[in-house]
Amino acid sequence: MIDDTHDPALTSWVESANDPGTDFPLQNLPFGRFRGASNEPWRIGVAIGDCVLDLAAAGLIDSQDMAALLAQGASRRRALRRALSQGLRHGSAERSRFEAALRPLAQVELGLPCDIGDYSDFYAGIHHATAVGKLMRPDHPLLPNYKWVPIGYHGRASSIVPSGTPIRRPCGQIKPAEAPQPWLAATRRLDYELEMGIVIGPGNALGEPIPIAQAEDHIFGFVLLNDWSARDLQAWEYQPLGPFLAKSFATTISPWIVTLEALAPFRAPYERPAADPQPLPYLDSPHNRAHGALDITLEVWLRTPAMRVPQRLMRSNLRDLYWTVAQLVTHQTVNGCNLRPGDLLGTGTVSGPGEDQGGSLLELTAGGRRPLNLSNGETRTFLQDGDTVILRAYCVREGLRRIGFGECAGTILPAREV
Amino acid sequence: MIDDTHDPALTSWVESANDPGTDFPLQNLPFGRFRGASNEPWRIGVAIGDCVLDLAAAGLIDSQDMAALLAQGASRRRALRRALSQGLRHGSAERSRFEAALRPLAQVELGLPCDIGDYSDFYAGIHHATAVGKLMRPDHPLLPNYKWVPIGYHGRASSIVPSGTPIRRPCGQIKPAEAPQPWLAATRRLDYELEMGIVIGPGNALGEPIPIAQAEDHIFGFVLLNDWSARDLQAWEYQPLGPFLAKSFATTISPWIVTLEALAPFRAPYERPAADPQPLPYLDSPHNRAHGALDITLEVWLRTPAMRVPQRLMRSNLRDLYWTVAQLVTHQTVNGCNLRPGDLLGTGTVSGPGEDQGGSLLELTAGGRRPLNLSNGETRTFLQDGDTVILRAYCVREGLRRIGFGECAGTILPAREV
Repeated sequence: MIDDTHDPALTSWVESANDPGTDFPLQNLPFGRFRGASNEPWRIGVAIGDCVLDLAAAGLIDSQDMAALLAQGASRRRALRRALSQGLRHGSAERSRFEAALRPLAQVELGLPCDIGDYSDFYAGIHHATAVGKLMRPDHPLLPNYKWVPIGYHGRASSIVPSGTPIRRPCGQIKPAEAPQPWLAATRRLDYELEMGIVIGPGNALGEPIPIAQAEDHIFGFVLLNDWSARDLQAWEYQPLGPFLAKSFATTISPWIVTLEALAPFRAPYERPAADPQPLPYLDSPHNRAHGALDITLEVWLRTPAMRVPQRLMRSNLRDLYWTVAQLVTHQTVNGCNLRPGDLLGTGTVSGPGEDQGGSLLELTAGGRRPLNLSNGETRTFLQDGDTVILRAYCVREGLRRIGFGECAGTILPAREV
Repeated sequence: MIDDTHDPALTSWVESANDPGTDFPLQNLPFGRFRGASNEPWRIGVAIGDCVLDLAAAGLIDSQDMAALLAQGASRRRALRRALSQGLRHGSAERSRFEAALRPLAQVELGLPCDIGDYSDFYAGIHHATAVGKLMRPDHPLLPNYKWVPIGYHGRASSIVPSGTPIRRPCGQIKPAEAPQPWLAATRRLDYELEMGIVIGPGNALGEPIPIAQAEDHIFGFVLLNDWSARDLQAWEYQPLGPFLAKSFATTISPWIVTLEALAPFRAPYERPAADPQPLPYLDSPHNRAHGALDITLEVWLRTPAMRVPQRLMRSNLRDLYWTVAQLVTHQTVNGCNLRPGDLLGTGTVSGPGEDQGGSLLELTAGGRRPLNLSNGETRTFLQDGDTVILRAYCVREGLRRIGFGECAGTILPAREV
């Protein structure tokens, strides 16, 4: 539903929100948690330009319980968005009350936007699945279930950290194919994965699947997600039960949940190649075909210790996914599994169709065999200590205000000694 | 450490605790949560005979925050155990205060013993891994990593339910090998898995592995765990990222956490066959070799709707595991992954070496090809609606008081229509 909160002509009395380059114009209004000092409790805020609006201080909410806010239905979410949009507009009668509730982003710490009960990670990026599959099975990279089942696995919730948290290079068992036995060592093949995370709103009771027609009612919004991966640990441990320690050392997410309402003007049709199987009926709906996809540009940037500014490594689009976010929510619950407010669903790595559009170094370097040449003369196969990986995302469309997701960044620290 | 709380001559003024058949004698003292009515908050209690002692009412704790109790170190845990043992003994001066805090188990509802942040499930039962591997790879059932890596995967925390919760038969995608494409249906191969769950005490900070010498300080205790599994969903979905919807519809645990202190007299040496590789140094310690294993008898019982009393299907022992619980804790954190109080680690299915010791129907029926004959003339390949599966566990040793784990039970409800 596109309403007047998306009007590109609207401007805010928070002047930085009118800067054409900001991720957080009046049309975005993403939710997060902030605090002024590390001994204070987290407070719920909304990003606007280079500030955060303290929602309780502005009189818009009564409690700092983000799960309760997420659990509200879509109509309450839309009413809150409208109140925010109206209060932050030029000429708002609420300006003085809202102005007293504004804090510069530069003066606050941003935390995880919500407590995350369960985190599951899908594999919906077909170009990623194909490229990774090719490294192991050149003749049939995609397994027979790929185009039928939204493949996913459970991830680790405890080690999800907000953007900016340093990432310690993990240790684990490594066994190259030619070695007679494994040993414990720091990973030599540390990688990132470019993903989007779906933040669950109300959720469902155990045993009550969410039909696809209602799936979007349970999506509060989206964050960027870096599924840090240790490829050598993964290769040795992952059979037969899937990735475990190769992933559980850390997952970084961006601090602002961009709502499904903010993304309404950037919906797109969801189509499959005619030769592909069509989704089973439980994963299909007219709305999903007409509007199920999201036109969000995604980017990976790298800053090595030798660089003054980061360099962009690739660009893809969330439309490159093989499954829609509604399909992921419905599939996750079709067996009765319950989703709770704040649960996180990763999309899987969003790579584009081109060889230079891999959403991980594994893809961009053909499994480490073809080093990436950086613009300052350095090369990389996998990440080195001190490297900073930054994920970015934004929506642009003719005649609309650009909205962005902020940054999802992490810098690699050296491993502990083992 | 074995102290006077384990003395088999000790008896309680709670007479039912002196019954030789009780799971909860004075020597056990397991922790759980109970309430008198469904609109009341959960309270922390300790099982004694056929009663529960309300810890706050007895003046032993100040808050009903189980995570805070779990987070206490081993010395605080031992002090609480001593206070409980002394107060519940015959002749205790605290008898009247404790007696006022007793509730009959028959009059309370038992919940999950703690809030579970993350649940991971290992695969440490080598007889199970071998039997399941044989169904797919008769010539080399165990993969090359099995004897080096404690294989595990992340599980779903939201759908963990306490004993007694009915289990709805799940739906999902099914594709038999001979079918040209999958369809959505209720599982036809619903199974249980007999496991023990490790409940984490204090836990570790992100990036700080737990060395094996300290692993047991982070184990609060153990529960029974039924890892319900839909084998047909699993076969179609599990490549390449492991089990997902085949497991996430429900996991049942028993309501009482039997502490590592209660189990102290039932420790056993941990040995491997001489021909097997020895554990890597980070998974090895003199204490682990001398005392790492636990001598706990495990049983699966089945009651079909046609039975008046349940029938025992198998018996195994936690000593049948290939890895110790300390090794599982250390391995899970070797990459820096953080464990939090209340996190749950499943051991994996504990099957014994015999063909009749499979911890799942998949094993007992050779993948459904050899139906199990029940004593009343019925047969089973997989579970039918109305079947109740009951897991039990207990420790017996010459000269010691038997202690038990209570029940971990669930009854199958028919699937919803799809």
